[in-house]
Amino acid sequence: MDSIMIYVPIIMAIIGLLFMWVKRSWVLKQDAGDGKMKEISDHIYEGALAFLKAEYKLLTIFVIGASIALAVISFIVPTTHILIVVAFVFGAFFSALAGNMGMKIATKTNVRTTQAARTSLPQALKVSFGGGTVMGLGVAGLAVLGLTTFFIILFHFFMNGTWTSTEDMTIVLETLAGFSLGAESIALFARVGGGIYTKAADVGADLVGKVEAGIPEDDPRNPATIADNVGDNVGDVAGMGADLFGSYVATVLAAMVLGNYVIKDMGGNIQDAFGGIGPILLPMTIAGFGILFSIIGTMLVKIKSNDAKEAQVQGALNIGNWVSIGLTLVTCFILVKYMLPETMKMEFFGEGLKDISSMRVFYATVVGLAVGGIISSVTEYYTGLGTKPVLAIVQKSSTGAGTNVIAGLATGMISTFPTVLIFAAAIWASYAFAGFYGVALAASAMMATTAMQLAIDAFGPISDNAGGIAEMSELPKEVRTRTDILDSVGNTTAATGKGFAIASAALTSLALFAAYVTFTGIDGINIFKAPVLAMLFVGGMIPVVFSALAMNSVGKAAMDMVYEVRRQFKEIPGIMEGTGKPEYGKCVEISTKAALREMMLPGILTIGFPIAIVLLGKLVYSDNDQLTAEMLGGYMAGVTVSGVLWAIFQNNAGGAWDNAKKSFEAGVEINGEMTYKGSDAHKAAVTGDTVGDPFKDTSGPSMNILIKLTCLIGLVIAPILGGHNVETGVAQKEQEVRVEMMVDNDAAEAIVSYTTIVNGEEVVQEKKFVGTTEEVKKQVEAFRDDVKVQIER
Amino acid sequence: MDSIMIYVPIIMAIIGLLFMWVKRSWVLKQDAGDGKMKEISDHIYEGALAFLKAEYKLLTIFVIGASIALAVISFIVPTTHILIVVAFVFGAFFSALAGNMGMKIATKTNVRTTQAARTSLPQALKVSFGGGTVMGLGVAGLAVLGLTTFFIILFHFFMNGTWTSTEDMTIVLETLAGFSLGAESIALFARVGGGIYTKAADVGADLVGKVEAGIPEDDPRNPATIADNVGDNVGDVAGMGADLFGSYVATVLAAMVLGNYVIKDMGGNIQDAFGGIGPILLPMTIAGFGILFSIIGTMLVKIKSNDAKEAQVQGALNIGNWVSIGLTLVTCFILVKYMLPETMKMEFFGEGLKDISSMRVFYATVVGLAVGGIISSVTEYYTGLGTKPVLAIVQKSSTGAGTNVIAGLATGMISTFPTVLIFAAAIWASYAFAGFYGVALAASAMMATTAMQLAIDAFGPISDNAGGIAEMSELPKEVRTRTDILDSVGNTTAATGKGFAIASAALTSLALFAAYVTFTGIDGINIFKAPVLAMLFVGGMIPVVFSALAMNSVGKAAMDMVYEVRRQFKEIPGIMEGTGKPEYGKCVEISTKAALREMMLPGILTIGFPIAIVLLGKLVYSDNDQLTAEMLGGYMAGVTVSGVLWAIFQNNAGGAWDNAKKSFEAGVEINGEMTYKGSDAHKAAVTGDTVGDPFKDTSGPSMNILIKLTCLIGLVIAPILGGHNVETGVAQKEQEVRVEMMVDNDAAEAIVSYTTIVNGEEVVQEKKFVGTTEEVKKQVEAFRDDVKVQIER
Repeated sequence: MDSIMIYVPIIMAIIGLLFMWVKRSWVLKQDAGDGKMKEISDHIYEGALAFLKAEYKLLTIFVIGASIALAVISFIVPTTHILIVVAFVFGAFFSALAGNMGMKIATKTNVRTTQAARTSLPQALKVSFGGGTVMGLGVAGLAVLGLTTFFIILFHFFMNGTWTSTEDMTIVLETLAGFSLGAESIALFARVGGGIYTKAADVGADLVGKVEAGIPEDDPRNPATIADNVGDNVGDVAGMGADLFGSYVATVLAAMVLGNYVIKDMGGNIQDAFGGIGPILLPMTIAGFGILFSIIGTMLVKIKSNDAKEAQVQGALNIGNWVSIGLTLVTCFILVKYMLPETMKMEFFGEGLKDISSMRVFYATVVGLAVGGIISSVTEYYTGLGTKPVLAIVQKSSTGAGTNVIAGLATGMISTFPTVLIFAAAIWASYAFAGFYGVALAASAMMATTAMQLAIDAFGPISDNAGGIAEMSELPKEVRTRTDILDSVGNTTAATGKGFAIASAALTSLALFAAYVTFTGIDGINIFKAPVLAMLFVGGMIPVVFSALAMNSVGKAAMDMVYEVRRQFKEIPGIMEGTGKPEYGKCVEISTKAALREMMLPGILTIGFPIAIVLLGKLVYSDNDQLTAEMLGGYMAGVTVSGVLWAIFQNNAGGAWDNAKKSFEAGVEINGEMTYKGSDAHKAAVTGDTVGDPFKDTSGPSMNILIKLTCLIGLVIAPILGGHNVETGVAQKEQEVRVEMMVDNDAAEAIVSYTTIVNGEEVVQEKKFVGTTEEVKKQVEAFRDDVKVQIER
Repeated sequence: MDSIMIYVPIIMAIIGLLFMWVKRSWVLKQDAGDGKMKEISDHIYEGALAFLKAEYKLLTIFVIGASIALAVISFIVPTTHILIVVAFVFGAFFSALAGNMGMKIATKTNVRTTQAARTSLPQALKVSFGGGTVMGLGVAGLAVLGLTTFFIILFHFFMNGTWTSTEDMTIVLETLAGFSLGAESIALFARVGGGIYTKAADVGADLVGKVEAGIPEDDPRNPATIADNVGDNVGDVAGMGADLFGSYVATVLAAMVLGNYVIKDMGGNIQDAFGGIGPILLPMTIAGFGILFSIIGTMLVKIKSNDAKEAQVQGALNIGNWVSIGLTLVTCFILVKYMLPETMKMEFFGEGLKDISSMRVFYATVVGLAVGGIISSVTEYYTGLGTKPVLAIVQKSSTGAGTNVIAGLATGMISTFPTVLIFAAAIWASYAFAGFYGVALAASAMMATTAMQLAIDAFGPISDNAGGIAEMSELPKEVRTRTDILDSVGNTTAATGKGFAIASAALTSLALFAAYVTFTGIDGINIFKAPVLAMLFVGGMIPVVFSALAMNSVGKAAMDMVYEVRRQFKEIPGIMEGTGKPEYGKCVEISTKAALREMMLPGILTIGFPIAIVLLGKLVYSDNDQLTAEMLGGYMAGVTVSGVLWAIFQNNAGGAWDNAKKSFEAGVEINGEMTYKGSDAHKAAVTGDTVGDPFKDTSGPSMNILIKLTCLIGLVIAPILGGHNVETGVAQKEQEVRVEMMVDNDAAEAIVSYTTIVNGEEVVQEKKFVGTTEEVKKQVEAFRDDVKVQIER
């Protein structure tokens, strides 16, 4: 029988989507300004739609291809159900839908923000953040709605809506993994393609416009201007949205998988008010409540004074953010107490079964909430305007581009120190509290306020666009000043948002990694086996090569753009005088095509390597699927460790270079002299920023998708590696636990013997107990329970 | 009883050292030129000595401190013997001695090469390569002499010169690890300190001399010129020498440790003509013969024509190199056949005992020899003049420093792809052939021709210096042309030498890693345990932070140099007119002090972290040393994987930038136009090279030391983590293997039962055999042997 609790996340998701709809109507009702503004905004909107359309074409082909592959797998592997294809298609569809909604509202909000900025700053914030809220709630609402609905359907399909066994639930969750895989595949296209798009347009527009033709940024005479503005939406809005949509779904899924194994560790059956699946429902429920708290948080983001500065705007965002996090914390406490058994049994690898109180799970969620915040702060320290590391880069700019670049690289590299230590401490602590279920719940708690995080993230590019429109429409200076304040805050939130995104991707990957190990039923992943160690090396290399490919792609795409802009400047008469009209559409097309073309190779790398490793393993160790599974696990670990490092390095180096360059706008003191824009030091800083651009907006953020998708593919492949066979094989042996007991007066001697498989061979194990009859009986009973669990695993 | 074979390596080493002495006398007898040349050469010699002197002071303090720490450990841990301190001191002393000899001969050879270049190119090659040969043979000879002598002493001290048991030999080898630790500690100082020294002097000299004052490179008016030339010797000669000395010793040691465990797997006792320690002697013997073949190789390096170009010089070096490698290959075949049992038993983790023929060990050495060559070729492809990747960087220079830097970074990153795949394949293949003993022997074979490799490496900086002296002494142009040919070849060998060094460091680390696991007696390293996984992350971060610290150090030290040169230009009258004499010594002093000061932090990071992890583990898991050992193992794996990646990335990016810049000297075609030195594109390429300098000469090569030293520290710590206790604990259980056999006519049933420890609890395991009496007897016997070995491990 279902518990009503299973429907709670759906209700929350619907509330979120309703609120989103109301907010959306409100934003669209706002004044969209006059002729020129509207015209530019329409260009951006159309450019964004053109990208989406081209992307969807490619996606459709990809989804069809991948679906066929999945269908073939599901026919070959008896334990994979064909429904995984349906889940996959829906996952992809929901993710694309969320991206579509977000991009549309963002491109509609930008001009309305410009118009609002003509009246007052508070109003401009209200409109731009309103657009961000629509984006955030859309993503979170669709994610929870889709995942929960699918879970309920599969739960009824495979288990008739009642708990039967861990094995059955495993099939439900394996099929549900298709939904997550679909979502993350779309994220690959959106994040990597979007990243290439935005930087190709940006670099291309700057190289010819600013450097060669000497016209300012966002000048309407530059044919690549529209593409540049579209890029902000494609990369920063849609890319980030798809990224977090994927993390959100994957985190909750992984936590559910591990919840299922908690039930197994407790004997395969628990009694609670939630149909015996409390540990599985918990992560979904936390996600549902998170939507509610994000709504509350967004309502608190407002300023009153028209003379507010960056600090006040940042403060307003912080209040909203902290309130939603605080409410999530309290709710985690209540839900954990309410939904989990007071004491659970969890298997700790190599340490055996342990009793874990539900409070320890709560502590794990505290770890998750804390880590999200701390890593964002660390990111801000290394990349924020006026911080010590950024000022050091500014100083190094005085001796040229070379020293500036070295300083930026070193800053990004050093920033891995605190970040990784915090991260390692978080893994360790949440695991110590509640095993890998704890790690997954830490991630779930962190991701609960995704809607709020995304609202804060999306508001940045919207404001950036609004400023661009103000510039292109030649509006009064105070309008640009107001949008600049919002934009400046947006730059900070972009950097911290990247910290949040990588932290969430990393925790998600670890949770998926743990789910993978439990799915395959292997004895952990032992890197003292050389094939596994070799794969750890290969995995470590992938993020580095992926980053290089992404960076090169930007370079190539930017060159295409440069040639097109040069052509237009030469061939269109009167373009520089403002009488000839640039062909914006051509530039949009070039960016679109280049982005989609260039993301193929990184995509193939990401999807192809795990499959290649499995094929290689099957070939070489045809009789040992377990070793192949360990090899793939080693690869996953390598990708995750190296990917996290390179993400931190690239994001923070890029962010620091960006703000080092920006520092010159207000003027900086170098060797006792005030130095401004246009100085040699500033030019050196611009070079650094050019290097940092693909780092922070293309290759760096792509790492998130790479590590998550790698682990998800592993999870989907897991059943092929014979997890089930082993499980059922061992499960049969359960019958063979035999107890022989000899009682002599009050003294007894008992021998428990059971069959297990060591190195592929059946081995009979025995344990002897001696003592009083009562003692022996108790010991035997306890030991038999242990053994049962041990065998089932 | 000793086998005579144990003394063979010593004899070879002595032959090598004698040949070195002859060669040394010959080089020193060469004409050292006239007044000005001699004066400059003396300045360089004195500068190098000044650095050595300052370094030795610091080293003495370090060695005393570390010896006290080791002595304390040996008192606390019963299984660590106080002799480890003696071994450590001697290891440090031998390494320093080798460095001293190499540096002295290099600084004596440079001026003699200049003088020889006045007569002919063949003579110049003969002299410069002669100096390199002295360096190479000195390093290799001292390494083999020291290690073998110490082994014999310890073998007699602990085992009376006859085989007793694996446990006793483990104590011998654990003590011998002190020698390796001493050598590698000195390498840390030499490589990291040398790297900082050379780049600080180089960058400092260029920034003020070339850029600000507009005087050419190596101009005697520049006060930092001497420091710059000293730097070439300190960094490229002494640093590389210490690095390879350390690799050489560590590789042979690790192979000996794993050879000891092969004997254990074979029942703890083998009969052969080498006192039962053939597998342990083999790596030393290969190293000994390698010295001989290096001598033969060096004798083949000569050219005849005075009009020879780079290709001929490179060809002469290649012939020598390939002949020595070929001879090593043949000898490996003979030695393996001669010294190893025809069939060995080796334990493959998770796969059980396997029969391994000695030919498979030979195949592993083939893998090692091939990998060294292939990785050098790959390095050349990514960094050589005129190769596709380098030309691509040249093209990107036309759009500015930003695109040049991005292209260089991307090239370095992409170069990890083939390198890591080859490397992973090598690990896998050599392991598949002969387990981790195979991996260690692959490394040993590769390292056998170290003397030859080092001769080729050291010849580069000697020629570079010779050119500098020609310039400073204002010799005729043809002299500089001749030295430039040698220098150009030297640049290529420097890049491929770095490929060789990282490949050897990586294989060495893996062998040490395997030795560590066997020493601690843990069940492999399972990254599915969260504390282990957390340490994998932390380990992965260390090389990144280490690199950043090294890069920042160069920046700081270079600034010190800039201020000093500026001061001299201002304060010394007539310095620019050539009438005032610059204070070279001041600049040398600054580089020396800065190098030694700045290397402290990276040093502390390297040594401190493994110790901190053990303390943390002991604190948190006070009852579970095995888990702490696994955590440290995870850390070691993280450092190695990440360190290898960052070494390849940084070395190759730096090398590619360097040659992209050099391409402009002869002129390159960009977009159809010939472009030369002084163009904007060239300036962009210079910026890239500035970034690449610390990459390829400081942080990149330091990774070698970082990963080796980390694994060595782990090995020395291993006994603290209780490996011995567990081993003896299990060994007692051996008594409890029991066979019950029931015979009925010809049919028999047997039960073998034995006690083993699972999760810290004693468990009785049983196996049943049914069949004819004869069959059962055979099966039982085979199984019992297996079980015995299994229990002992």
